[in-house]
Amino acid sequence: MKERRFDEELDSMNKELLKMAAMVESSIHKSTEALKRQDSGLAQSVIDEDREIDEEELKIEEMAIDLLALHQPMAGDLRFITTGMKINAELERIADLAVNIAQMVKELAGRPLLKPLIDIPKLTKVTQRMVKDAIDAFVNRDQDTAKQVILSDPQADELRNLVYEELVNDYIIKDGTTAPRAIPLLLIARHLERIADHATNIAEDVIYMVQAKVVKHHPEQLDNNGGV
Amino acid sequence: MKERRFDEELDSMNKELLKMAAMVESSIHKSTEALKRQDSGLAQSVIDEDREIDEEELKIEEMAIDLLALHQPMAGDLRFITTGMKINAELERIADLAVNIAQMVKELAGRPLLKPLIDIPKLTKVTQRMVKDAIDAFVNRDQDTAKQVILSDPQADELRNLVYEELVNDYIIKDGTTAPRAIPLLLIARHLERIADHATNIAEDVIYMVQAKVVKHHPEQLDNNGGV
Repeated sequence: MKERRFDEELDSMNKELLKMAAMVESSIHKSTEALKRQDSGLAQSVIDEDREIDEEELKIEEMAIDLLALHQPMAGDLRFITTGMKINAELERIADLAVNIAQMVKELAGRPLLKPLIDIPKLTKVTQRMVKDAIDAFVNRDQDTAKQVILSDPQADELRNLVYEELVNDYIIKDGTTAPRAIPLLLIARHLERIADHATNIAEDVIYMVQAKVVKHHPEQLDNNGGV
Repeated sequence: MKERRFDEELDSMNKELLKMAAMVESSIHKSTEALKRQDSGLAQSVIDEDREIDEEELKIEEMAIDLLALHQPMAGDLRFITTGMKINAELERIADLAVNIAQMVKELAGRPLLKPLIDIPKLTKVTQRMVKDAIDAFVNRDQDTAKQVILSDPQADELRNLVYEELVNDYIIKDGTTAPRAIPLLLIARHLERIADHATNIAEDVIYMVQAKVVKHHPEQLDNNGGV
């Protein structure tokens, strides 16, 4: 009986994590759409909805601690719970970065955009895919997808650097008065790249959960056989 | 006998956390000294030493998971272990930000500094104090000190904004060619402010550990009676 209760609670923690993941994906989507459309109202909705995400994070954290305290789980379940706690924290940080992007969109509002947004749409695409894949990897306990996420991270770094160099060299240095429009874009690129870092952390957590093997800080231990 | 073993392991996790905290404080100190002295060699040592901090983080994480799995701790001990895991992760992130500062110092190397470093030394001081106090609060299970840390966070935000505005308005807009010297300082200010955020997270964790009460995302629940 106690066993069944535990399984139900574990299942419900899993469901809440999926709900949290969906909320966070929606925040990223809205904040990047707000940038594309220069839509301050949409940006504001990302900022307003962050409180719900914060509360969802706390709810999951409490569920996890209760599971640990009341049921003293072993091995695989223990690993699922501790990894779930970490993924929960990573998701909350991604949501905070979506809020940071939304704040920059509001700061840019009313100012003419530096027109092509440089490589930011490309970086957005890479980052969104990494988050989606990291979450899918978690849902399906799929380490191959998790590895793909980790291997995508250098691409996000590189795109961030491209955006940075172009904004500084082609805009700000040539005309300092572009700074109030260029620097928010520069920071948006950083926020996106950090979202990619958190997606990478989630992917590392998934591999740990599946393999019970730590790859964090040791990308060289990624075994790339098997079609990644 | 099992009980004694557990207490010893808990104590040794605590000691490793203090070691981790000392390593991280040293990284912040070195990276900000490197900025002050424009010392690329010192900045490089921060970057090199980060690997040891990463390994210490993993060591503590494994100790925590072993403690959870092997001893199934209850109540207060459970809370110490889960909070310790979170503080461990925050410390590792602070160290990463010290690395980011060190990277900016290297990028600035050889270029004449925008001379007064604006309010960065003040922000550095506030941030270092917050980290030190957050760690002391953890060591002494002292919630009053933890509250002080949380209440200092707006000051760090404000100093970051001052640095940002001065760099943009007084330097970059007036002369775009200052951007390669100004933008790294702008990012350093961000990194310092984010270190302050992580110190705040640690302080919130300490209060949770002591009171079993979550203040995260709810600063209005801080009870400021009692000399804070």
